[in-house]
Amino acid sequence: MVIVKVMIMGVDGYLGLPLAMKLLSRGHEVVGIDNLSRRRRVREVGSWSATPIADPFVRFDAIQEFYSDFTFRFMDLRNTTEVEYVMYKHKPDAIVHLGEIPSAPYSMIDLEHCNETMTNNIVGTNNILFAMHKHAPECHMVKLGTMGEYGTPDIDIPEGYFDVEYRGRKDRLPFPRQPGSWYHLTKVHGSFNIMFACKIWGLRSTDIMQGVVHGIVTDEMVDDRLLTRFDFDEIWGTALNRFCAQAVIGHELTPYGKGGQTRGYLALRDSMQCLTLVAENPPDEGEYRVFNQFDECYSVNELAEHVVKVSGEFGIEAKVWNIENPRVEAEEHYYNPDMKHLPGLGFKPTYSLDDELRITIPKLMEYRERIEAKRERIMPTVYWTK
Amino acid sequence: MVIVKVMIMGVDGYLGLPLAMKLLSRGHEVVGIDNLSRRRRVREVGSWSATPIADPFVRFDAIQEFYSDFTFRFMDLRNTTEVEYVMYKHKPDAIVHLGEIPSAPYSMIDLEHCNETMTNNIVGTNNILFAMHKHAPECHMVKLGTMGEYGTPDIDIPEGYFDVEYRGRKDRLPFPRQPGSWYHLTKVHGSFNIMFACKIWGLRSTDIMQGVVHGIVTDEMVDDRLLTRFDFDEIWGTALNRFCAQAVIGHELTPYGKGGQTRGYLALRDSMQCLTLVAENPPDEGEYRVFNQFDECYSVNELAEHVVKVSGEFGIEAKVWNIENPRVEAEEHYYNPDMKHLPGLGFKPTYSLDDELRITIPKLMEYRERIEAKRERIMPTVYWTK
Repeated sequence: MVIVKVMIMGVDGYLGLPLAMKLLSRGHEVVGIDNLSRRRRVREVGSWSATPIADPFVRFDAIQEFYSDFTFRFMDLRNTTEVEYVMYKHKPDAIVHLGEIPSAPYSMIDLEHCNETMTNNIVGTNNILFAMHKHAPECHMVKLGTMGEYGTPDIDIPEGYFDVEYRGRKDRLPFPRQPGSWYHLTKVHGSFNIMFACKIWGLRSTDIMQGVVHGIVTDEMVDDRLLTRFDFDEIWGTALNRFCAQAVIGHELTPYGKGGQTRGYLALRDSMQCLTLVAENPPDEGEYRVFNQFDECYSVNELAEHVVKVSGEFGIEAKVWNIENPRVEAEEHYYNPDMKHLPGLGFKPTYSLDDELRITIPKLMEYRERIEAKRERIMPTVYWTK
Repeated sequence: MVIVKVMIMGVDGYLGLPLAMKLLSRGHEVVGIDNLSRRRRVREVGSWSATPIADPFVRFDAIQEFYSDFTFRFMDLRNTTEVEYVMYKHKPDAIVHLGEIPSAPYSMIDLEHCNETMTNNIVGTNNILFAMHKHAPECHMVKLGTMGEYGTPDIDIPEGYFDVEYRGRKDRLPFPRQPGSWYHLTKVHGSFNIMFACKIWGLRSTDIMQGVVHGIVTDEMVDDRLLTRFDFDEIWGTALNRFCAQAVIGHELTPYGKGGQTRGYLALRDSMQCLTLVAENPPDEGEYRVFNQFDECYSVNELAEHVVKVSGEFGIEAKVWNIENPRVEAEEHYYNPDMKHLPGLGFKPTYSLDDELRITIPKLMEYRERIEAKRERIMPTVYWTK
């Protein structure tokens, strides 16, 4: 199956924009979908992207200047009829579904944000599945999940499924999920729903359990209008993004709790490499496969140490201050996830954490004033227990 | 902890009504909540209950004649503020949460019914969890799940959790779930959400993986106004209910496919016994426990044989006709679920399948005309693959 037309749900997001350009540069047609809600939700919590991202129509016009095979459609994935219409109209060969609300702290703000994250993510994905079944049954859905779906079990983490022996009998079963926020729960719910749709309708999907992506720049960002967002506040920023931003404005780096929380990490360019490989190599009809997608594993304390070291190379003397953990999570734990499927498709990581930090930190220094302006949105105010 | 005040979500349903009376007869105060949507949804598919159930206000007035400690509140669990208000107002010691859309075929009708079942069940349960956290943190939530959350793995099914050994390491993990319809998926999503709320907020909950309940009568139904519903159509009836109704109107009994689908079954009176035991014996603070709740396991073909046998005792000559299976499910499989927690609390099954059928079939014969009137709503029209 040759992949020509790719639809990206969430094309206005951190990964969506660089992925669109990456796929276009490889000769694919790209239809980008977004309701622009990420911009609104970041404003809602009083923050903004460190990078001064272009207005959506400026950004999408700029892409079209470079790549004529790009189309943008403003659309909300919760709108059943619109989703069905774009699937009928475009019949994509692949969909990369990044169009979900992606923040654990946002989902933990209160009941309203919990329910909104749940219904947005579940209904949007269901709408795509039904529309695929009706109008593009051969299409491959690449769904962005998270390594956080697994939580931190005290055994190795396989890729989606494992061979179990229990009381003398054997079966191959979905690996138990132990998500740690309402947001992470929505990703688990989505995984179950997609697995079921593949089973009953013969749809094909790759569910990406992605580690934390870091970095700002990809080769296709030849113009400031094509910069992707970089969030650093307590709600939308990852721990690593926060540490980079803190270093740049002379704020202590603040790991939560003991800082032994270990996760998989991946440079933005390598995430693009992976998503492209996956989209171009669809599974068989009816196949639901799960790929773990990360490069290196680090604890939060180790991340902070790397940021201290690399920011030192740029004349910054950063300090680390472990603060009270606003989350409920294991702060010291076993962590040994598999990552075999992607190398099997040819994935070769190119940028280590330090390599990427040597690009990210000086780039962020250009935007020091924008970070400084939102300094008070970095420390945690959303607590899991309250 | 002494349980005095119990709130029943879904008190107008098949289990809710007899449970209210059972708990009231044991001296509890009962607040019953319902939005009466089950009546509407059964009408929507062109069917009705075989038993002529009383109008809601007649029914609830009748309960109050016998038990003064009963209150009914008309309310939709999706309404966040109302749920918070009843929790603030009543501060129940236990909640028995039966207030979800409970039909696999209903959820499989189309995308609209899928999304409605998902959002109704997920948002309703989230609203209760947040309201408990805020206004009744000691309250015990007894949540109705289904044995169908597990699917049919080729290994034994424990109660919620299992000890896994994998690549030389051990952990105790949630048992993998493999639900078989959008409805069953909502029950899995709910289980994950409740598990998380117990973990972060210290709530206590018992998640009931219930088998299929059968039967119409309980001891407290001393008056026709207190009859519970008995659904027999393709959407709302269980296989066993359908077979009983088919026998009564001289229709062939129609197992789906090969009929080797095996599930756990439980008489209505024994379900009431279990739910009462569970509600009266709460877990510890922060404990999320899973109980499998059934008595005997039967294949669908065996159910049909029992209905043929018992209906023969009442002069009915029933025949069996295995029809095309509208569902996607294993028609022959291993099935060996545990059921140890409930006997540990004192559960003793009292009515076998045949005992209960000897009550159900003659009772249904009184309502033969009502079943005959909806004869055309028994055969399947909702297919999993279409």
